[in-house]
Amino acid sequence: MLTQPVLLLDEKKCRQNIENMVGKAHNANIRLRPHFKTHQSLEIGRWYRDYGIEQMTVSSLAMAHRFSAEWKDITVAFPANILAIDQINELAARIDLGIVVSSAYTANFMQRVLTHRVGIWIKIDSGYGRTGLVPGADAAEIDVILGLLDATTQRMEFRGFLSHAGHSYNCRSREEIIAVHHLTTHLMKELKGQYLVHYPQLQLSVGDTPTCSVAEDFRDIDEIRPGNFIFYDLMQAQIGSSYASQIAVALRCPVVAVHPRRSEIVIHGGAVHLARDFITTPAGLTHYGRLATQNDDGSWGELIEECYVKSLSQEHGILSVPAEGIELYKPGHVITILPVHSCHTAQAMGSYTLVENGRHLDRIGMGS
Amino acid sequence: MLTQPVLLLDEKKCRQNIENMVGKAHNANIRLRPHFKTHQSLEIGRWYRDYGIEQMTVSSLAMAHRFSAEWKDITVAFPANILAIDQINELAARIDLGIVVSSAYTANFMQRVLTHRVGIWIKIDSGYGRTGLVPGADAAEIDVILGLLDATTQRMEFRGFLSHAGHSYNCRSREEIIAVHHLTTHLMKELKGQYLVHYPQLQLSVGDTPTCSVAEDFRDIDEIRPGNFIFYDLMQAQIGSSYASQIAVALRCPVVAVHPRRSEIVIHGGAVHLARDFITTPAGLTHYGRLATQNDDGSWGELIEECYVKSLSQEHGILSVPAEGIELYKPGHVITILPVHSCHTAQAMGSYTLVENGRHLDRIGMGS
Repeated sequence: MLTQPVLLLDEKKCRQNIENMVGKAHNANIRLRPHFKTHQSLEIGRWYRDYGIEQMTVSSLAMAHRFSAEWKDITVAFPANILAIDQINELAARIDLGIVVSSAYTANFMQRVLTHRVGIWIKIDSGYGRTGLVPGADAAEIDVILGLLDATTQRMEFRGFLSHAGHSYNCRSREEIIAVHHLTTHLMKELKGQYLVHYPQLQLSVGDTPTCSVAEDFRDIDEIRPGNFIFYDLMQAQIGSSYASQIAVALRCPVVAVHPRRSEIVIHGGAVHLARDFITTPAGLTHYGRLATQNDDGSWGELIEECYVKSLSQEHGILSVPAEGIELYKPGHVITILPVHSCHTAQAMGSYTLVENGRHLDRIGMGS
Repeated sequence: MLTQPVLLLDEKKCRQNIENMVGKAHNANIRLRPHFKTHQSLEIGRWYRDYGIEQMTVSSLAMAHRFSAEWKDITVAFPANILAIDQINELAARIDLGIVVSSAYTANFMQRVLTHRVGIWIKIDSGYGRTGLVPGADAAEIDVILGLLDATTQRMEFRGFLSHAGHSYNCRSREEIIAVHHLTTHLMKELKGQYLVHYPQLQLSVGDTPTCSVAEDFRDIDEIRPGNFIFYDLMQAQIGSSYASQIAVALRCPVVAVHPRRSEIVIHGGAVHLARDFITTPAGLTHYGRLATQNDDGSWGELIEECYVKSLSQEHGILSVPAEGIELYKPGHVITILPVHSCHTAQAMGSYTLVENGRHLDRIGMGS
């Protein structure tokens, strides 16, 4: 019996989400290198294998280290940390490791201390403004990096340009997502066109869940790296990249108090379970998650209108529900919340409970 | 050498914060029952013992279970979850367990299934509006609960009324904090006055870090339960409950990229490390943490003006710094961030590194 919050995982939905993305990559003739920071589970990682995936992405060396037990082709899509050179060398000795470089300073350091062959991606800022070099403005620095790579071909193998169009998360329709996709891939393709003559093996790696879910045109792109799509969440549904029915994780929580006078329910399920991500709906409502119906088999169904997580403390969640019908909720009931950002909910919870058979899957590491 | 984010802990500051609160409780002749959800570490818990503390508070049964290895007087300051009755009974068999009841429904259930003596606190909503019964409006329900307790004196021992003035977090000055303290304790004292004739042992338990840090008048209060004060954080400094110099934890992070053109630094240190709490300063700036100076001995010093965490991804933090001097930062440097909400940063990180000798302290459990 459930006594505290558990993160439910619907394997069928997960596998359908994987299958959809694998199918899209196949049709577009591009490589899918899914990002594993979303699920961080060895077992879920193996599900990708069933669809022919042999390469993946992580966002830290700690994650790369843990997944290297089963994966031999890993890109760490995070600016290479020169303080962690020992971990980079250790991994590079064992697996096909790709790292991301976004400055001549880092490339120069790596050139001197790498002991094994590493695939080098130059990080491009395609408009998100988080990390990476800006085509045009940073052309000279890109050339310095390429010069350094040319001089050390044994250890630093230039793979190509890599970007993450994280600003697709500001979109609120499929049309806006397509527009971001076109703008960012156009910029990457121009760069490819510019350098292809000297680097005929040069590849482009892009990919975030919104653009990879919605866009169909991936000409001249070589690889995509979405991650969140395996679970999706309410944020993705609001962006327009998925339907709420595709969301594959949900937090099941005990009801601990019911407040009919203010139409609110208190659940054991707070910031340490859901994480603190919120969205504001087009109607101006800010919330941390929404209530879904529950099926007899333990799975969940549709979103319930006008029922949302209004606020979170460390352990408490406050659920706003319509006054009419609130008497149906009692302490000791359990309710099911769909998360705003599944990557962070999964990180906070640290393990999954399979809806189908109640089996538990662990994440392989926390805080990494 | 630091290769990834670590949560530094300054034991001296921690102990000074403990000593200050113990001194205040001693002077006011009230019991300090510190909340351990902030640190969740057995070892840090032992520091309280050095100041004579033998009782504490947690916010989940899982935490109570883990701390019961060393603590025999624990209040779970969270609405009692009737689904977890087995855990409650198991704990009550071994330790002096206090639980919180906020409805006749739950009290009635507990009356039938408790197998051991449990201390019962009736949760009062003193104005925060999260959980608890409202004096006046819910007077009839309070009386029903008391009637149930009277009928089962062996197993349900009425301790008194408990509240948490969480709305003190909306304060922005010591005067506002004092005002919240007066309003909420006034309401609790009225309740005590009303029931004391029938329940002469009746106690009042209140306490949140802002009011307990600032208020001096605790007449008729029996117990305080602050937790955050052991670490404090930027939120507490902004509320007016502490100075930034009292903050006892800080996240040390590697610099992985420097962007002079936009005056930003990219660090390995994201939402999975700092957590996603933010504050908006009086000047209208929203941030997720601020940069502090570093001392040669590994500790940190003053806040650095105009240097703050502007945004967070899962693993990335973007630090905004003044354009002047940005050339002093290089990939491979480490910087130190003071957190907005130390409870959540500690939860996210899962372990501490002592500044003084670099020793590691583990939290005893995650996600609880």
